[in-house]
Amino acid sequence: MAKIAAPSGFRDFLPDEFRKRQDVLRRIRETYEAFGFEGMDTPAMESVRVFAGKAGGESEKLMFRVLKRGAELERALAAGASDLADLALRFDLTVPLARYYASHRAALPAVFKRYQVGTVWRAERAQHGRFREFVQCDVDVLGSSSPVVEAEVILATTTVLARLGFSGMRVRLNSRPLLHLLVRGAGVPEELVGAAIVAIDKLDKEAADAVRAELVGKGTAPGVADGLLGLHARTRPLDQAALFDEVAVRAGGAAAIHLVGLREILSLTPPLPAATLVFDPFLARGMDYYTGPIFEIALEGVPFSLAGGGRFDELVERLAGVSVPACGFSIGFERVCTLMEEQGLFAASGRAADVLIALPASEVAGDALRLAAELREAGLRVDLFPHAARLGVQFELAERKRIPYAIAADPEKLRTDSFEVRDLAKRESTRVERADLAGWLRSHLAPR
Amino acid sequence: MAKIAAPSGFRDFLPDEFRKRQDVLRRIRETYEAFGFEGMDTPAMESVRVFAGKAGGESEKLMFRVLKRGAELERALAAGASDLADLALRFDLTVPLARYYASHRAALPAVFKRYQVGTVWRAERAQHGRFREFVQCDVDVLGSSSPVVEAEVILATTTVLARLGFSGMRVRLNSRPLLHLLVRGAGVPEELVGAAIVAIDKLDKEAADAVRAELVGKGTAPGVADGLLGLHARTRPLDQAALFDEVAVRAGGAAAIHLVGLREILSLTPPLPAATLVFDPFLARGMDYYTGPIFEIALEGVPFSLAGGGRFDELVERLAGVSVPACGFSIGFERVCTLMEEQGLFAASGRAADVLIALPASEVAGDALRLAAELREAGLRVDLFPHAARLGVQFELAERKRIPYAIAADPEKLRTDSFEVRDLAKRESTRVERADLAGWLRSHLAPR
Repeated sequence: MAKIAAPSGFRDFLPDEFRKRQDVLRRIRETYEAFGFEGMDTPAMESVRVFAGKAGGESEKLMFRVLKRGAELERALAAGASDLADLALRFDLTVPLARYYASHRAALPAVFKRYQVGTVWRAERAQHGRFREFVQCDVDVLGSSSPVVEAEVILATTTVLARLGFSGMRVRLNSRPLLHLLVRGAGVPEELVGAAIVAIDKLDKEAADAVRAELVGKGTAPGVADGLLGLHARTRPLDQAALFDEVAVRAGGAAAIHLVGLREILSLTPPLPAATLVFDPFLARGMDYYTGPIFEIALEGVPFSLAGGGRFDELVERLAGVSVPACGFSIGFERVCTLMEEQGLFAASGRAADVLIALPASEVAGDALRLAAELREAGLRVDLFPHAARLGVQFELAERKRIPYAIAADPEKLRTDSFEVRDLAKRESTRVERADLAGWLRSHLAPR
Repeated sequence: MAKIAAPSGFRDFLPDEFRKRQDVLRRIRETYEAFGFEGMDTPAMESVRVFAGKAGGESEKLMFRVLKRGAELERALAAGASDLADLALRFDLTVPLARYYASHRAALPAVFKRYQVGTVWRAERAQHGRFREFVQCDVDVLGSSSPVVEAEVILATTTVLARLGFSGMRVRLNSRPLLHLLVRGAGVPEELVGAAIVAIDKLDKEAADAVRAELVGKGTAPGVADGLLGLHARTRPLDQAALFDEVAVRAGGAAAIHLVGLREILSLTPPLPAATLVFDPFLARGMDYYTGPIFEIALEGVPFSLAGGGRFDELVERLAGVSVPACGFSIGFERVCTLMEEQGLFAASGRAADVLIALPASEVAGDALRLAAELREAGLRVDLFPHAARLGVQFELAERKRIPYAIAADPEKLRTDSFEVRDLAKRESTRVERADLAGWLRSHLAPR
């Protein structure tokens, strides 16, 4: 039979990579907890109707849907196969959060600050660096419309990334209704604003010509498209004060309240670690559930954002008729890992154990098991090679698992209760009495 | 719109329960690591062909299958809808491990000791205490046929459960080929042995009459069924030595090698924490990939096992033509949590933060954010209420999140840099200078 690989777009994690990822996830969780966010979880799947019409754009089309089972599947097939799936895998952590909040509102605090680290699935076309299964790390606050919420999620998210080693981050801040007004002010008719925003969202990644072609293709008059792109080009070099002034003029009187809101966030937010917070009137964001401020974290020279978020005050209501203000920020964990690898930000992947008990002969297996148990009792992490093999082979295996020391359960050594502890990197041994083994190892081990 | 709940058989986790579960999972991982097992992961989904014909019994029937997408789905529908799914969610962590090993053998150590803590999905009929999404915690060793492997996975798993607070555990040990010989020896013809073992597997949960009816219903002659059940009843009170003797007689000469193997495991295994290891010739286990020793952990008065495992030397070969000995032990995490709850083994669920900064007026929001940042810098976990509200309301919210202390960002207090730290349980306050706040809190906080 042929070798069978993980499905296309899905990944296996070998122990070294798994350890690195777990270490990063632990640091992310600890930082979120330092901000008073509480962990929680939702199922991997929701009823398909929970997702329908919530996120807009591409995400919904990319859902993995789960086949009905048994008699229900037969009924669906008999009825013409239009309704074969009852469940779908989550494609983000925001829509399920809205469902969760609607289900459990009475049991949750009036201001619910949550974090979630979870896997999401999207049936993307498989291509280099695009995964169909990936991890997102989200913080959200439900139950407050105060700009303090925006300040806190922005501070928490930049603190996470700064602690992971990133610097020179730009947190781009905009407002979805303000962008809407700006696009309207440039002459785009109301019914074309949505499509125009989708096109504008690509201004960071694509040439202005391509975005112009998309705008015109979707129905925007060529002159209006040119005006919009001209405004974009003209505002890029402006400082923050001039930018606010220019946008106030272009977006009209209705924009004032949104500009005040953005100024408030800018003035409330404490100095960010390794990041600057800047107003960027052309930031768009993909999901169409945003209702207020939106934000994204960019790194110089990196063609994708590390994190994105915003306010989605109407999502819970659209789902369950319960009105609650909400705002969150999501870290793209896979992108963060890719960049950490490229920038050499990963610490050395930890060791699989502190010491290996090597087994030179099968007759001493029971003694080796007891020696291992003894050292574990003393708090050490002890690997044991399970069958007799050449010591060289066993030591090599230990080195591959980054285990620093090895002790051979040699019959002679077991008899005299005095062992050779081998430093596998230095390839030298030290004689240590059995009673002193744990102490000796503890005093020689590097911190984890 | 009506309130929307999680799909039937799926669960949301509120923060308190989430914290408890995370704490248990952390302790499980740490214990596995103390035995030199390395963490790894596989995708939630595999190609349906990976699962086909691997586990037998009920598990495969209970797979959640994922609908094909786009043109592929249309082709499948046009072709008669027999082949609508290309992927399936994993129903255990063992079959994916076999696929993983076959894919990555060259990159893995010759003896691969892995642990995996992961979600699995089974489309069980929803009923009380039966979940469709649940967590399993597995250790496995691939690449060694030594009985030291059985001893290690049994010791690691009982150590995990003992550290969680369980005592009085019985680790039941048997051998699948031995059980086969025993059933043959009782007169069951070869072709009925599989069905007979499935029936025998229920002897712990169902009355002997019901098992007899199933045996006879599947084709075993009534006299043979009576003989088998008689043997079961007769051997229950026997001590271990007598049990070995009796089974040796009943199972015939071919059983000798399996009896030697079991004796070896019994003699190799060091004293187990809070558990005894016993030979039980009628232990069956559900999955049909087992090829050698099998084991299960039972608790007095509990009608289900806490963990189950065994040797599956042929699974990787059946999947990918690569022959490798393998053996593992899987903890049923949900059952463990249910029992921990019943037996009061959970520690108090930790606090969401060390201190709450309360916000009496929105004008001081910026100051409150800075005060919070200051305390976080000093290593404290700080929650901040994001909008102005009555202090009583804010303190109540903090208590609900088990936060022990609160500091109001009162304008007067901010001016004098001297705050009242409120002990929320005792309902009393202490005046502390700003410069001393972090130190004061650290010295008064209970350990986490």
